[in-house]
Amino acid sequence: MDTHTLSIRRVGIDTWRESVAYLHRDCEAVRAAGFQALAKVQVRANGQTISAVLNVVDDERIVSACELGLSEDAFARLGIEEGHAAHVAPAEPPASLPALHRKIAGERLERDDLHAIIRDVAAARYSKIELAAFVVATNGWDLDRDEVLHLTEAMIEAGRRLDWQHAVRGGPVVDKHCIGGIPGNRTSMLVVPIVTAHGMLCPKTSSRAITSPAGTADTMEVLADVELPFERLQQIVRDTNGCLAWGGTADLSPADDILISVERPLAIDSPGQMVASILSKKIAAGSTHLVLDIPVGPTAKVRSMPAAQRLRKLFEYVADRLRLQLDVMITDGSQPIGRGIGPVLEARDVMQVLRGEPGAPSDLRDKSLRLAGRIIEFDPDVRGGDGWRIARDILESGRALAQMEALIDAQGRRSSPPQLGELTHELPAPGSGQVIGVDNLQLARMARLAGAPQVAGAGVDLLAKLGDRVEAGQTLYRLHAQFPADLHFARSLAEKDCGYRLG
Amino acid sequence: MDTHTLSIRRVGIDTWRESVAYLHRDCEAVRAAGFQALAKVQVRANGQTISAVLNVVDDERIVSACELGLSEDAFARLGIEEGHAAHVAPAEPPASLPALHRKIAGERLERDDLHAIIRDVAAARYSKIELAAFVVATNGWDLDRDEVLHLTEAMIEAGRRLDWQHAVRGGPVVDKHCIGGIPGNRTSMLVVPIVTAHGMLCPKTSSRAITSPAGTADTMEVLADVELPFERLQQIVRDTNGCLAWGGTADLSPADDILISVERPLAIDSPGQMVASILSKKIAAGSTHLVLDIPVGPTAKVRSMPAAQRLRKLFEYVADRLRLQLDVMITDGSQPIGRGIGPVLEARDVMQVLRGEPGAPSDLRDKSLRLAGRIIEFDPDVRGGDGWRIARDILESGRALAQMEALIDAQGRRSSPPQLGELTHELPAPGSGQVIGVDNLQLARMARLAGAPQVAGAGVDLLAKLGDRVEAGQTLYRLHAQFPADLHFARSLAEKDCGYRLG
Repeated sequence: MDTHTLSIRRVGIDTWRESVAYLHRDCEAVRAAGFQALAKVQVRANGQTISAVLNVVDDERIVSACELGLSEDAFARLGIEEGHAAHVAPAEPPASLPALHRKIAGERLERDDLHAIIRDVAAARYSKIELAAFVVATNGWDLDRDEVLHLTEAMIEAGRRLDWQHAVRGGPVVDKHCIGGIPGNRTSMLVVPIVTAHGMLCPKTSSRAITSPAGTADTMEVLADVELPFERLQQIVRDTNGCLAWGGTADLSPADDILISVERPLAIDSPGQMVASILSKKIAAGSTHLVLDIPVGPTAKVRSMPAAQRLRKLFEYVADRLRLQLDVMITDGSQPIGRGIGPVLEARDVMQVLRGEPGAPSDLRDKSLRLAGRIIEFDPDVRGGDGWRIARDILESGRALAQMEALIDAQGRRSSPPQLGELTHELPAPGSGQVIGVDNLQLARMARLAGAPQVAGAGVDLLAKLGDRVEAGQTLYRLHAQFPADLHFARSLAEKDCGYRLG
Repeated sequence: MDTHTLSIRRVGIDTWRESVAYLHRDCEAVRAAGFQALAKVQVRANGQTISAVLNVVDDERIVSACELGLSEDAFARLGIEEGHAAHVAPAEPPASLPALHRKIAGERLERDDLHAIIRDVAAARYSKIELAAFVVATNGWDLDRDEVLHLTEAMIEAGRRLDWQHAVRGGPVVDKHCIGGIPGNRTSMLVVPIVTAHGMLCPKTSSRAITSPAGTADTMEVLADVELPFERLQQIVRDTNGCLAWGGTADLSPADDILISVERPLAIDSPGQMVASILSKKIAAGSTHLVLDIPVGPTAKVRSMPAAQRLRKLFEYVADRLRLQLDVMITDGSQPIGRGIGPVLEARDVMQVLRGEPGAPSDLRDKSLRLAGRIIEFDPDVRGGDGWRIARDILESGRALAQMEALIDAQGRRSSPPQLGELTHELPAPGSGQVIGVDNLQLARMARLAGAPQVAGAGVDLLAKLGDRVEAGQTLYRLHAQFPADLHFARSLAEKDCGYRLG
């Protein structure tokens, strides 16, 4: 097809992940190809090719008729200096589009179809519209288990893959993961110190909060740096057996990152996409053994035991075929874990458990020991059933605390850690009775309105939990915020529905 | 929530339908609200509000830190001059988002849900991602008939509605429509002259080609202006009883136009969306009586008689409840209608039929008379069964031709009509035999590659049709193009698969 030689110009417009090419309306390429704004074009320069969305420009100060303007993202992706010659042509439609259309029409896709789709997604050849269509067409249980397997495989192939075998010489590389949805559930920050103190390799990378008030990376960041260049991360793991870092720098499953950016605004969290997303990232990160936490409760992601079992079997089917040793634990998701919700409060809970303080939240301690125990039993030298006891000994002896301090120092201790938000509001119990319901979603919303996770010291501190007896007027929880407007919004929500049921 | 006063600046970037707001990275609004590129923002100025996608700018020459840049589309939608004060704030999520999420999860939606969704779509409050999600989640037969009814109602309410009752005083306002997919099917250009010559009011607006080689508006444009301001259109209908105009200027179903812009790249053409799209536009245009053409054939949109019947019943259910008199005709869609495919060739066929030329394509003539006859029978004074004969008399007497000439003059006759493309290639029959299959899709693709509809004189001229006996080497069809590259591409496709089967 026709292409046109133009001179590259960097246009100082940040369009985030969407690469935009700016062409002047009088540019030969626009006139000859009958380009319209929002058409997909292919930009070639010096052997590199990227696709971009076209914006047509009428202002010579932005681009002239012989220039090809590139948004910041497009300029960075192409990686070629200003003034270099470039060609622009209509983008070929992604090769996997017929497969996408078949999925939209409800057909089952083959292995090659899913690999082709994920290759195109990872190469940013799909438009937002096509990404959303894929995500919706594979929603719910619309993917069968082989489709999920092939999707997972394809996501692994499309990204970088880490290998720790030189460090473990055939031994396990362990990890844990929770499917999410339970505020305060910061077990990774206890499990990693315990199992690495036991001598296992656990290079744990975590996400930041997407829709929740805190992710493990946000909470660990209260104590230490979490954005570590990959080479430093490797060194830390060599030195300490583990890490508690943000996973965003590792480029492990770029296709998954792109799909999540579309799933999030649509509030989609389907079983197939969840399994492929979690397992692809774990396998790409080089894990060989994984303990997976599926919390079940009326306001958790999974609401019933049959639903949890169905999800468990899907995880097991895919993990087995990809030779990942998987141990699924279905846990109690009926209320938040620990007391704090929000980065600073959750870090406080974790440190209380590690230090063995008398007031430390026992539910966080118990759950972390159970998870760590199961991981320790991946160790071939540990007798079945002994894991929990070993984990408890490591915690009670102070070895887990020492290991956590070593991890914090290795990653870079925060010199002035963020403080708890000083603006507070205490929510009184509306009557007397026993706590018979706690709403995970409502409390998470409150913590976010209070400012978490952007404001690390914002959040909710629970003073009563399920089964506790409370008197009218007694404080159920305390809101913490840094800004008056945030406190106001969180308080308004709490006063509309406090998230607690008394009976 | 926080808003920030900025000065409006028009940025000469055409982003087509996607409104973009450009804010400098150092702008107070960006820093305070923690805006990221691609966030949705709400722009308020002088009592007007629009939503837009944010692009963050690092170049003072595009916008300074105290300016709010608007893309051409956003600037036009806001309709306020440069330098005026404006406020920008995070956009509230569309109110109908929970309903969209429920539809994605497979639930049935109520009337209020669908009205809320379409209100938000029409007001451009949905992102591309949300639009695509809606279109995919309502694909296939995923909408039940009441959902389709409510979707249709909502689309009518979201747009402008025309009323011709002053002109007909309770008489019918008639229209015809074909669901599409059959090349050359230009019956409207015969039906409108015939039924308006009979004295019926038929203010026909048509679309341009979206994925086909010609829409009625493209073909009529060979002869006359079709982009008419609404007031002129009304005057023409008063003077001549009808028109053959492009419908894009009337703003009849803005929500439908937006949804189509997403359905098209996904190749989605689902029954529910088709029914809502067609019926909403007809009712909004003030039609009271409609004849609908559903062609059935192996390469038509509808491939079997049961599928056609199912679609017919859905059309009837919705039309009845919205008090539109609907007469569905299931027709032969096994091959193109007429000889020409492409605007100039199709206009030639139409004029040959109107002039009663001996070589005029009889299939186009017969089908148009059948459709016109059914419309004429909407006239309370016409006896059931007499419509076809009346239509034929109008055509054979030359009254239809005179009426067409009047319509052309009223709309504005083209002084130098486009000519047939002079570059040609004749496709020889690969062997001898009877034509037993003609592929609508393949011939449409060829005509588009040859340049149609942008190049009005490009297309395919069929010299053999189903049932014809051809000898090896005899010409099956002639390709017409204006540019050598176009002819080359069309010819390559024809040589790969000529679209004809001989038996």
